[in-house]
Amino acid sequence: MESSATHTLSTQTQGAPLAKYAASRRVGDYIFLSGVIAVDPQNKVIVNGFDDIPAEAAQLIGQTGEFSTDYKIGPILAQSWYVLNAIRGHIEAQGGQMSDVFKLVQYFRNVDHFPYYSQVRQLFFPDQAPVSTVVEVSAMMPSKAILIEVEATAYLPLS
Amino acid sequence: MESSATHTLSTQTQGAPLAKYAASRRVGDYIFLSGVIAVDPQNKVIVNGFDDIPAEAAQLIGQTGEFSTDYKIGPILAQSWYVLNAIRGHIEAQGGQMSDVFKLVQYFRNVDHFPYYSQVRQLFFPDQAPVSTVVEVSAMMPSKAILIEVEATAYLPLS
Amino acid sequence: MESSATHTLSTQTQGAPLAKYAASRRVGDYIFLSGVIAVDPQNKVIVNGFDDIPAEAAQLIGQTGEFSTDYKIGPILAQSWYVLNAIRGHIEAQGGQMSDVFKLVQYFRNVDHFPYYSQVRQLFFPDQAPVSTVVEVSAMMPSKAILIEVEATAYLPLS
Amino acid sequence: MESSATHTLSTQTQGAPLAKYAASRRVGDYIFLSGVIAVDPQNKVIVNGFDDIPAEAAQLIGQTGEFSTDYKIGPILAQSWYVLNAIRGHIEAQGGQMSDVFKLVQYFRNVDHFPYYSQVRQLFFPDQAPVSTVVEVSAMMPSKAILIEVEATAYLPLS
Amino acid sequence: MESSATHTLSTQTQGAPLAKYAASRRVGDYIFLSGVIAVDPQNKVIVNGFDDIPAEAAQLIGQTGEFSTDYKIGPILAQSWYVLNAIRGHIEAQGGQMSDVFKLVQYFRNVDHFPYYSQVRQLFFPDQAPVSTVVEVSAMMPSKAILIEVEATAYLPLS
Amino acid sequence: MESSATHTLSTQTQGAPLAKYAASRRVGDYIFLSGVIAVDPQNKVIVNGFDDIPAEAAQLIGQTGEFSTDYKIGPILAQSWYVLNAIRGHIEAQGGQMSDVFKLVQYFRNVDHFPYYSQVRQLFFPDQAPVSTVVEVSAMMPSKAILIEVEATAYLPLS
Repeated sequence: MESSATHTLSTQTQGAPLAKYAASRRVGDYIFLSGVIAVDPQNKVIVNGFDDIPAEAAQLIGQTGEFSTDYKIGPILAQSWYVLNAIRGHIEAQGGQMSDVFKLVQYFRNVDHFPYYSQVRQLFFPDQAPVSTVVEVSAMMPSKAILIEVEATAYLPLS
Repeated sequence: MESSATHTLSTQTQGAPLAKYAASRRVGDYIFLSGVIAVDPQNKVIVNGFDDIPAEAAQLIGQTGEFSTDYKIGPILAQSWYVLNAIRGHIEAQGGQMSDVFKLVQYFRNVDHFPYYSQVRQLFFPDQAPVSTVVEVSAMMPSKAILIEVEATAYLPLS
Repeated sequence: MESSATHTLSTQTQGAPLAKYAASRRVGDYIFLSGVIAVDPQNKVIVNGFDDIPAEAAQLIGQTGEFSTDYKIGPILAQSWYVLNAIRGHIEAQGGQMSDVFKLVQYFRNVDHFPYYSQVRQLFFPDQAPVSTVVEVSAMMPSKAILIEVEATAYLPLS
Repeated sequence: MESSATHTLSTQTQGAPLAKYAASRRVGDYIFLSGVIAVDPQNKVIVNGFDDIPAEAAQLIGQTGEFSTDYKIGPILAQSWYVLNAIRGHIEAQGGQMSDVFKLVQYFRNVDHFPYYSQVRQLFFPDQAPVSTVVEVSAMMPSKAILIEVEATAYLPLS
Repeated sequence: MESSATHTLSTQTQGAPLAKYAASRRVGDYIFLSGVIAVDPQNKVIVNGFDDIPAEAAQLIGQTGEFSTDYKIGPILAQSWYVLNAIRGHIEAQGGQMSDVFKLVQYFRNVDHFPYYSQVRQLFFPDQAPVSTVVEVSAMMPSKAILIEVEATAYLPLS
Repeated sequence: MESSATHTLSTQTQGAPLAKYAASRRVGDYIFLSGVIAVDPQNKVIVNGFDDIPAEAAQLIGQTGEFSTDYKIGPILAQSWYVLNAIRGHIEAQGGQMSDVFKLVQYFRNVDHFPYYSQVRQLFFPDQAPVSTVVEVSAMMPSKAILIEVEATAYLPLS
């Protein structure tokens, strides 16, 4: 039985409340998420490279240890990991799991980044791929340092 | 009980019917809207500034009375108001209210406009924010004078 | 009665399996499609003009026989036809029909192409128009030769 | 004892002789190679993607099976493999092995391709890396389809 | 007596090992260096101006103390100093001295920078100039902040 | 027997000495040349066309006598001849001959010029071709009027 119960989760559990911003909302059997970007809302820091994510995650997603390569591919890989990990966090906070996410709309500042993002996404969706739309757009909030934004939708029926 | 009843509302209540265009559609418990832009389809006029919206609305959304400022911020503020007001009109015509809108995808020609749009949006969503995705794109129909397009989804269960 | 059954259709029925890609997914009473582009993955070809689609389709969508005109309008018309035809194929493969598609999000590399696309779309939706969002973006995968991407959603309740 | 014996190897063992072109030259204890590009001189075909190299090589260097990704990353990966494999062929034809190559100058049309090239290079130099210079230049012969040119130097003392 | 002994020096003496990167290699009587850029791999910093090099070096190479001037000429001067100093470090680590460097290939992002670089180079080569090739290229790894890359070759016969 | 004797030849035999510039250097059994451009250092004049080289050379390399053609192809042909002739001069001054040059790195401002250069190069290397690398770069010193720079290496064993 659907209900229109809505749960507004802010992306921060501590610190100043975000004004008028809902990170996700349950509507009926679905959970709709706002587009997620790689910004740590507590620190207001844009994820910029491997140093901005946990070391084990960096290893997992392709950090090479070679300075020039990691300088170049770190930003998109780290932002991809951060965004998908945040989406997983939101879904788990609602009692679901990443595999309940069935649809992703992915906005890129540079669609040449897609192969890097795709290799990270495979870590989060090892079994079944979600339906997916990919486009390159001019920019996202809050600045051109943001390379990717992902809008996820999940299906988690109430009983 | 869901039904697949669909209601096609044209964006104009009078004048020539738009060919093959559905402003909104009820599908099951949801109402899906086409992306809305700030064009008065009767007059075929693109909303260009405070003069193109009702004076009380202009006051409400930040008209200053100072020519240069209003010339600069008028277009985005007026288009934001026009678009959100049109969305509210479509939802109310279906028996719902603005708070039934739970998701907005917002396309900007210049994402620097977001703060202006956001202050208008707060007038339409004083309580709970909808989930929101914001991107800057190259253009919308019908011309570069369009600064914003908003695609809304509402939840209004039957029975 | 909704179910969370998911069906992953690859866009190719033969040849190498696509890695981690779901062309469509049934979720509850809805069928969600990944964004579709005019690429034949079997032959690894981007649809480039009238020659890349069946002759009867080309006739139907406006091939003139005049070289310069067809060279110019062929790509967007042929890609529009290919994409909408592919969407129809996915929906029919799930037991539905094109009229079950109630929502389209349409990404263009050049929004001046919209009128051409629109005349093709009318062939696929002769009765009721789906709700529609149109934006111009910078690029789609896999290259700038792709002029349009369409993300479709259909409603096909499980009895 | 060094000798100034020079061996001019054409890059083709059959077919028409190349005019005035030396693929490599032994000079003293060194073997100097001309810059190598990914062109099959027999067929005069520029390597354009995974289909232009042996399937096992394509697998090895990162072919994903997903059309859009492989369309985008295939050219640089396939050209990188082709070039390094040709270099290895030249060195082996002179009685040496790839590990005798101690220096590479690598010219790219787009230095964002370096991470892809680098992952292929690691397959050819699993142990010790050669000294390496990487720059992005405007173009190589014969056309902008050439994404990379590699100039190798090897040390293979005449005992 | 030549030997094919090879010494791989990483550009960092502490911290994470660089993957598959050889800063220099002895081959026979020669020492070949990889192209050097003004990056401190330990701190992951691109040298950006006078503040990124030792104060005495900054003084030596032309820091004026006037903000606008130093803002403009600092990057190329500081990167030139850093690169040549790193080259000297590599050669000294191999038991040689800067005057053993007989050849430099110098890649610039803007060949108008050459006079600045040249005045720094004279500090490192007070007596005999090395042979020199100078070209302007589009970019170096890892980003457009890199203004110069220098590839050095030294002659340091064993015994 | 190698020696590390170095001979620094200035590019001018008379007139003011060039500061800190070595046109060539003998190192062991090799002679390394700085990149050569088509500038007469005495007159400081960039070679601009057939009129800037000896008439017999102009005839040899393809001067047609037709104004428009010679205006267009003269610069690259004349610069190619000038540069290769200067390289020959440097080698002969060291007791060698052009055929001792075994390697050329050729930088072009426009790689469409390569065929013109190549026909001139054949005059200088009638028998065996040197190993060769060709790239198009953005610019050379001292100005965009320079169309080509060639860096030559020769092998001329002592004793």
